[in-house]
Parts: sequence; structure tokens; C-alpha cells
Amino acid sequence: MTWQKLYNERVRSLTPSIIQEMRDLISVPGTISFAAGEPSSELYPVTELRSAFGRVLENSPELLAYASPAGDPCLREWISSWLYRKGYSLEEKGSDRILLTNGSQAGLNILSLMFLEKGRKIILEDPSYTEAMLTFSKEGVELLTVPMDDEGPVPDLFEKVVREEKPELYYTIPTFQNPSGISVSEKRKLQILDIADRYGVRIIEDDPYRQLWFDSAPPSTYLALSGDSENIIYLGSFSKIIAPGIRCGYALLPPEVMKKAMELRVLLEIGLSSVLQRSVFEFLSTSDFEAHLVHLREVYRSRRDAMVNSLNKNIVPHGMGLGVPEGGFFIWGRIPGIDTSEFARFAAKEEKIGTVPGSGFFAVPDHGSEFLRLSFAQVTPEEAEEGSERLARALIRYKGR
Amino acid sequence: MTWQKLYNERVRSLTPSIIQEMRDLISVPGTISFAAGEPSSELYPVTELRSAFGRVLENSPELLAYASPAGDPCLREWISSWLYRKGYSLEEKGSDRILLTNGSQAGLNILSLMFLEKGRKIILEDPSYTEAMLTFSKEGVELLTVPMDDEGPVPDLFEKVVREEKPELYYTIPTFQNPSGISVSEKRKLQILDIADRYGVRIIEDDPYRQLWFDSAPPSTYLALSGDSENIIYLGSFSKIIAPGIRCGYALLPPEVMKKAMELRVLLEIGLSSVLQRSVFEFLSTSDFEAHLVHLREVYRSRRDAMVNSLNKNIVPHGMGLGVPEGGFFIWGRIPGIDTSEFARFAAKEEKIGTVPGSGFFAVPDHGSEFLRLSFAQVTPEEAEEGSERLARALIRYKGR
Repeated sequence: MTWQKLYNERVRSLTPSIIQEMRDLISVPGTISFAAGEPSSELYPVTELRSAFGRVLENSPELLAYASPAGDPCLREWISSWLYRKGYSLEEKGSDRILLTNGSQAGLNILSLMFLEKGRKIILEDPSYTEAMLTFSKEGVELLTVPMDDEGPVPDLFEKVVREEKPELYYTIPTFQNPSGISVSEKRKLQILDIADRYGVRIIEDDPYRQLWFDSAPPSTYLALSGDSENIIYLGSFSKIIAPGIRCGYALLPPEVMKKAMELRVLLEIGLSSVLQRSVFEFLSTSDFEAHLVHLREVYRSRRDAMVNSLNKNIVPHGMGLGVPEGGFFIWGRIPGIDTSEFARFAAKEEKIGTVPGSGFFAVPDHGSEFLRLSFAQVTPEEAEEGSERLARALIRYKGR
Repeated sequence: MTWQKLYNERVRSLTPSIIQEMRDLISVPGTISFAAGEPSSELYPVTELRSAFGRVLENSPELLAYASPAGDPCLREWISSWLYRKGYSLEEKGSDRILLTNGSQAGLNILSLMFLEKGRKIILEDPSYTEAMLTFSKEGVELLTVPMDDEGPVPDLFEKVVREEKPELYYTIPTFQNPSGISVSEKRKLQILDIADRYGVRIIEDDPYRQLWFDSAPPSTYLALSGDSENIIYLGSFSKIIAPGIRCGYALLPPEVMKKAMELRVLLEIGLSSVLQRSVFEFLSTSDFEAHLVHLREVYRSRRDAMVNSLNKNIVPHGMGLGVPEGGFFIWGRIPGIDTSEFARFAAKEEKIGTVPGSGFFAVPDHGSEFLRLSFAQVTPEEAEEGSERLARALIRYKGR
């Protein structure tokens, strides 16, 4: 009698992604990693957070009780007002539309548990975020894709898939996308919105990188461009701009969905930790958060510049093309004629340089066979130089095998 | 175009429980509540937790990064060793068998997402914990039940259901059960284990109240009595013995299940907050936790005694029978001939005394129509006296309508 025999269809369908395999290869000491898709830990506002936690536990010990299934009302109010002030939402919705989540990933999962089931279809950008694809497909849905150009998903191809396959949902990471770094232009968003509207496709807009722009603020949100259409669910997160370990994401939901999401939340986990959430509120409302964001943008821009320079010098001459982003964490490399899954393993083992091959970001893995995701989030200029030299050496050796 | 039309079968099946309705009725100012199934907030070790959080954020800011999907290794080691020292598990399993969860509820949900699906059956004690039943049934399984006597589930009836219906799983709260307060005797556990073994039924042992015994430690766990059988998954929690708001539950899993649970965890939420988990570890490893438990037992025992005395004086003479527990939070009342769902609403509205009617704890709600759950967890002796007078007045008025 083993538990394995009892796994349901969801668990039987789980397969470890190549990203996990790469993580193990990269954990070898001495490896330089261009793989980590997470913020740089020295940029966490540790001192401010420590004092925020101290004040919250001192003044509000009642937050150690069970919490509302929606999350801390103070933080929900702050987010609602911030989304409005920033123009991401045209109206101030009020906290009764904000569901706090254990990171954006938990938001994606809750939406999956509410809207996906066998027989349904969801359309994604090609490429898209690995864990989103796996989260959707574990619920038994079919993943459809739309190819991207520099401005985002190609409208004609989007319309063709939508017309022929009739997906219920479109999932998009419109700003500094993981993994491609692409931001969808305003014009393109209006075209996509028009098609989605005509064919009755609802949109999940996943926007965790929006604040991390380098030269100018990114195009407006799908939500605002749609005139705050209730066909759009907007997901945000503090993981990239405060710290992932506070596990603080949020979803802006239509009222009917909010009510059901709270009912479901009780069964998933009763509620989340109000101590964490109120401490995030305390940090946001007592520190100069805009100055913090300006600092993050400066640091990540200089890291992007350093890595792009080093890659241009060391590996571009050997045949790698670069998609250079205007924000976020990711450079999207392409090496025509090379199977990057094999090459990434080779580079990690032989030259101790970690990257993420493209195959994990495509619903059809072969579509990603020439791509490589290079993250500069945690990489100093010195590591960028040394790492891109290693990557170039690896490529020369790999081609010469 | 609304999202409602897109709800999947899971969400369409959600129905608000009577417990939610009672919660709203009870929130009226001036109401005395015997309803709250949660610990008393003045018993939270606030000062110790505050200093634990401070030390963790001071010494280990790296915990603000993404965490392992299994949870903080320090806390997992502590739990593993504690379960062994206490004798709940016969061997020290090591932290690689412990999955930390966002409260026990999240443990129940993860197991549901792994093992339940339409066409399967799970057997529960009759009555059982409402949110467990709803968590299981949202995955489309059939709930089977076994009646309880003072020693636990009746073996012959358990065997009959198991033989005829062939459920894959048995879910049990063996110690100071919510809602009945019943603890399953050691003899009874051995009988159930024998039957489960013969029919190939796996067991989920949910044990959050175990530490809160009043006179003597409760019977051994199913896990230990089975000789650490891998057919048993053991769930524990710090919600009742530290504070619910730290969201710290755990599951002791067979190695094969642990591996898959970690894969699934990544898709559910990446990971939980290591800051919370390490702070709990810091509290546990630097404070006198056993003394804290002794204090909790004394306080809750005196609250049980006060409430039992007041109920015996005020309402038992009017026809309520009492199931008096030897630990935990709950007295299980019974009023023959009265529909407690109606009566509980009446008592809350007319006399401002909150209770939880039995119907919500039974898979077949009618089975609970004469029962009433009375929690003493948050009730002082003065409130117990005043509350039971109100309850008696309500009963007299209700009968005389």
C-alpha cells in the first residue's frame, strides 16, 4: 500500500521543469549565476522592515489571531489607493476588491482553482513564465500560444487562435516580461483588448515588474486602457520591489469573484499572516517608498548596462543575439543553430556559468531551443564580465566539440 | 461577459456554511460568544515572539529571499525531533519528511489537491471539522461517515462502511475533537488501525489539540500505535499553542509524498515566509516552551471547569446534556427535541449569546440537529456564568414560543 497509487490526475501530471535541473547544476560552488530570477538581497530594506515588524508586534498583538480571508485591511486600502494614484486603475476600487496573496504565484493558483478545469483553454504569450504554465496545466487545461514580436503578441495571430480555438482566458505578463523582457506597447494592447472583447476572452494581467523601469515608465496597463473593464483581473506583487520573503502579492478582482475567492481562501488556508501584511503596510506608510523605487531602478539599470556591455564584448561576436529590456530582470539571448538546453547544461558543468535555457518557457519546448534567459538582477558588473567571458568560452568549446 | 459563467465545478459547489452566518450574528456588540474555536489572544507569547522576530531580521536578513518549498530547515528539524521526543512518532524522521504549511488547513488542502478527485471516497468521523469536510468535498469526492461513541468511531460500523463503500482515505481528529471533544482511546485506535490495514485505507491524522490536555496526556497517536506506518500522514500545528497568526502547521509525510508535495508547493505559492518560520523556531528554541504549555493547560482547564459549572447550574436543568472534554476547546451540548440551527440563531438575536449549531459538523446536516458546540477557549468565568444564564433564558423563551 503506497500513496503513489493514490495520486490524482493533477499530481500524476507534474513533471520537474528543466529550471529545477539547472538550479541543481548551478549550486556547485564557484559557479557564476545569470539564472536567478529574483531580486538582489542587498537591496531589501532590512532595517526599515525590522523596525516595522517591531512596531506592529508592539502595537497590534491582536494580529496574531486568525485573519480575514481577504487579508489585512490597512494594506488592502494602501494598495487600492496606490493603484489609483499611479493610474493603473482608473477608479479607486476600495479595499473590498483587493485579495492579498502569498506572492503572485498564489494569486495565479487561486484563479486556476476557480476558473480552470479539463476541457477549457487558456492562451499565453509564447514564451511565458514557466510556473504559470505549469500551474495552469496541472488543472488539466489546454495551453494555446500566440507568438510575440518586439511590441508584444502579434494581433492577427492572436485573433486567429482566439477565433479557431475559443479559449476562455488570456494570460499575459505585459511589462518587462519573464523571460523575454518584452513590454507590450499601448497600441498593441488596444488591439488585443479589441479582439478579446469581440470574442469574449477574459484577461489575467500579471504585472510584477512594472516598477522596475530604467528610462521611462512603461505603457499603461491593460486594465486602465480597457476603461477598468471587469473582464480583466490585475495581479501585482511586492516580491520584486520589497522582498520575496514577505510573501505579499495581490489581485484586483471584480466584486463577484472577490466574494467567491474569499470563500475558497478559507478552505485553502483560512487566511494569511496579518503580522507580515501589516508590517508591509507599516513599511510602506512610514518610509519613502518612491525613493526606494528610484534606488532600485538605478541599481538594476546599471546592472543591465554592465551585463549588456560585457555580453556585447565577449559573446555577441561569437553568434549570440540579445533582446535588451527597458526594465525588469531579464536579457533574452538567442544563439541560432544551437540547442540551448544542451548548451546551458554544458556551460554550467564545464565553465561554471549558470543560465536558463529557453525550452522551459514555451508550451511547445522546441520553440525555445535557440533561446537563453540571462538575469542581471543579482549580478555585479565584475561578475557580468567574468560570467560573459565564461559563457563565450563555453560557446566556443561547445561549437568545437 | 461575467466571470461567474466561468466558475469551474469546484467553485460552483461552494456553499457558505452556517458557521459564517453565525459569525455575522455574533459580531453584534454586547454579544457573549461561546462560538470562537480559536485560542485566547492574551495567551499569545507576544513579548517572546517580538524579540524572536527582531533577532531573526537582525541576524538572518537572507530569509527575506524566496524560501525552500518545504519550509525553514531549522524549524523542520525542531519539529521532527520534538515529535520523536514526545513519542508521537517512533523514529526521528529528519526534517526531510516535514512539510511546513500555512496552518493545518493548508496541509489539508495540499493533501486534497494531491489525493482527491471525482469518483473517490473519504470516510470521516460523524461529526467532524466543518472546513475539512468542505475542503474535501470541493474536490468532488464523496464523504462517508462513521458514528462515534465516547471512545471514538464504532469499529463494527467503521468496518461495514469500509467494506461496502471502499473509501481510499480515513480522516480523523483523534484528540479532543473539534467539535465533539471526544478523544479516541488507545484500544479503539488499534481496532481502527487493524481494519484500515485489512482494507487498504490510508489515514490522515489531524492532531492540533493534543498539547491541550487537562488531567493526563491523551492516548498515543495512530502513527506511533501503527509502528510508524507509512500509511499514515500526521498533521500538527502551532496555531492553538503559540498563535494562529504565525500560520505555522506541518505535515509528516512519507518520502515519496514529500517529494511530490514540494513540486506542487512551487506551483501553489513558490514557498512560505521563512521569516515567520524562523521566528517560530527562534521562539521555540530560546523560551521554556514546556512551561508555556503547562500554563496554557492550566488556563484552559480552569475555563472548562468554570463553563461546565455554569452550564450545569443554569441550563442543564432545562434539558441540555453536556459532553465534557478532557482537553481542547469544546463542550458538546445536546438538547433533545430542539432544532439547534434555529435555536442558535434565536439565542444570538434575542439574548446575544453566540454558539455554533451542530448541523455544520455533519456530512448529513440533520444528524447534528440536536447538537450545539460551546467553546470555552476565549471565555472568562464571569462570561461563562453570564453567557450560560443568557443561553438558559433563550432556551426557555424558545420552548415557550
